[in-house]
Amino acid sequence: MALIDLSKQVALGVDIGGTNSKFGLVNHRGEILDKGSIKTDEYEKVEDFIDALYEKVSPLIKKHFNEKQFDGIGVGAPNANYFRGTIEQAPNLRWKGVIPFAEMMTKKFGVPCKMTNDANAAALGEMMFGAARGMKDFIMITLGTGVGSGIVSGGKIIYGHDGFAGELGHTIVKPGGRKHWSTGSEGSLEAYASATGISITAKKMRAEFPDSMLNDFPEEEIDSKVVFECAKKGDPTAIEVFRYTGQKLGEALANFVMFSSPEAILLFGGVINAGDFILKPTKLHMERNLLPIFRNKVKLVFSELDEADAAILGASALVWEK
Amino acid sequence: MALIDLSKQVALGVDIGGTNSKFGLVNHRGEILDKGSIKTDEYEKVEDFIDALYEKVSPLIKKHFNEKQFDGIGVGAPNANYFRGTIEQAPNLRWKGVIPFAEMMTKKFGVPCKMTNDANAAALGEMMFGAARGMKDFIMITLGTGVGSGIVSGGKIIYGHDGFAGELGHTIVKPGGRKHWSTGSEGSLEAYASATGISITAKKMRAEFPDSMLNDFPEEEIDSKVVFECAKKGDPTAIEVFRYTGQKLGEALANFVMFSSPEAILLFGGVINAGDFILKPTKLHMERNLLPIFRNKVKLVFSELDEADAAILGASALVWEK
Repeated sequence: MALIDLSKQVALGVDIGGTNSKFGLVNHRGEILDKGSIKTDEYEKVEDFIDALYEKVSPLIKKHFNEKQFDGIGVGAPNANYFRGTIEQAPNLRWKGVIPFAEMMTKKFGVPCKMTNDANAAALGEMMFGAARGMKDFIMITLGTGVGSGIVSGGKIIYGHDGFAGELGHTIVKPGGRKHWSTGSEGSLEAYASATGISITAKKMRAEFPDSMLNDFPEEEIDSKVVFECAKKGDPTAIEVFRYTGQKLGEALANFVMFSSPEAILLFGGVINAGDFILKPTKLHMERNLLPIFRNKVKLVFSELDEADAAILGASALVWEK
Repeated sequence: MALIDLSKQVALGVDIGGTNSKFGLVNHRGEILDKGSIKTDEYEKVEDFIDALYEKVSPLIKKHFNEKQFDGIGVGAPNANYFRGTIEQAPNLRWKGVIPFAEMMTKKFGVPCKMTNDANAAALGEMMFGAARGMKDFIMITLGTGVGSGIVSGGKIIYGHDGFAGELGHTIVKPGGRKHWSTGSEGSLEAYASATGISITAKKMRAEFPDSMLNDFPEEEIDSKVVFECAKKGDPTAIEVFRYTGQKLGEALANFVMFSSPEAILLFGGVINAGDFILKPTKLHMERNLLPIFRNKVKLVFSELDEADAAILGASALVWEK
C-alpha cells in the first residue's frame, strides 16, 4: 500500500435543509477548504437539485484537487436513513416519498455517498472537531425551527434497528399537552422547545399579561429573537417564556440522561442565543428530575461550532468512517 | 493454543435481589447445570453474604468440574456498575455505600468476576438464549416490585459514560404526578407500572368505585395478583387499573422507541402475568404516541425465559464477553 498524504484526501459534506442546503469541501483535518450553498426549495424535483448542486460543486472540486483524491460525499438531511441511503417522507422537503438520494448522488458525482440525518451529522461534527472532542457518550440537541437530536453511545451514533433512532424532539414531555402543528402528537418536546414552540408560548403569555413588552410587536413578528430582546430589557413575561421552555426542555433532558447516561448534552441551534435565560431553568429542571446517582454529573454545554459548519464537517466525516 | 471443549467451560451466574439471590452454574450453551438460592436480606454484612454464597456454591463447583475449567463469575445486582464492579447505593439492599463486590468475589472464589445491573443481566440472557436471540437492538423492561430496564443497541448493552445508563423506570411519564415512595421523584414510570404502583392505583380506584370486587379484599392484600383475579372475573375497576397502567407504560415505551428505535421491546416480570389486560392498552398507547415512521414496526413481546434463569444466564454470559 502506498503512503497517503491525508491532507490531500478531500470529501464533500452536504447539509440539506428545508430552505437552504450548504456544502463544503473538507480535508481529513476538518478544514473546510471551500464552501457554498444552494436553495433547496427552488427545486421541485430532486434530480434538478442534484444537477444544480453538481454545477456548483464541480468547479470547486477541480480547483482544489484532481478527482483521484476525491474520496466521497457525506450528506446530512432531514429524515435521512443511514442504512438505506434514502430520504424518507421528510415533512420539510418538497421531495415526497422515499428518495434513493445516496444512489442518485453516486451516479452523478461518480464517488461513494453516505447519508445520515442532519442532527446526527451535527453530532459527528461536534465529536470530531467541536465541543464533544474525546467524548464517547453524549447527546446533541438542536433547537431550531424544529428540535433534532443525535445520540452518541460508546463512540458511535445510535441508529437503532431501522436507522431512525434519535427522534428526541418527538418524545412526549407533557402527555395530552400542546398539539404539534405538523405531526399532530400532543405534548412533544418540539411543540415547546423549538423556535416555533417558543413563539407559540410567547403569543399565549403576552395575551395573559397586557403590560408585557411583547405586546408592542405585531403578531407575525413574535419569534424567539423578539422574546430574547424583551427578556434582555427585563420584561418578566419574556423571561417567563424562556423559563417555561427551559422547564420543559430540562424535564426531557432528565429522561434522556436516565436512558443513555451521557457525559454531556450539547445544545445547538438558534434558540441557544437566549443564553442563560434558557440554560439556567433547563439545568435546574434537568437536575431536579434526575435520580441522585446522575445528579451534577452531566455537562450541559453550548456547541462550539458554527451551525452550518458542524453539519458539513459531520457529514464529510461519514466518508472516512470505518 | 490447545483446543478447548466448550461444554466443559463453566461460569457461575449470580442474580442478587433484595430478598433472595439466585445462582446457577452455566455452560457455554446456556445450560444451567445446577442452581440454588440464598437469602440476601439475612446478611447485614456483605462479607458474610459472600462467605455463605461460597459455602453453597463450592460443593456444586466440585461436583461438576475441576477448578481449572471454572472460567469466572458474572453477577447481576441492583445498582451494579459494569465499569467499576461495584454495587452503589442500592436502595433495596442492606449493604450501604459503594461496595467493591467484584473484587471481593474474586478474592473469595479465586476467579475473575464481572458485574452488571440486574436488568442488563436479564437483557443479556434474553439476547443469548431467549426471545431476543439474533436481535441487535431491543429494550428489556422488567415489571416487578420496581421497573428495571436493559437497553441493547447495535448488539451491545448501553452503559453510558458512567455505567448507569438504562434507568428507564425512573424516567418521568407524568410531570408533577404520583410521588415515588423511595426516590421522591414525581410521576416516574415505576410509580405507575411496577407491582407497587399497580397496587397504589388499585387502592385509589376501588375507593372511587364502591361496587368493585376489589373492595372484597383487605387493604394489605391488594396487589397485582388480586387485581388480575378480579379483572378475569370481569370487574370493570380492576380492568381499568390495568388499562391505566398500560396507558402510562405505553406512553413511556413510545418515548423509548423514539430514542433508540429498537426492533422489539421485551416485557418481563411478575406484572406481565396480567397478559392482555395490560398488553393491549400498552400497545395502543405506545403506537398512538409514536411518529408515523415508527408505527407498527416495534414488536412488543413477553419474555420467554423464566425470570430467575434469564438473569443467571445473562450474568454468566458476562464471563465470556469479548
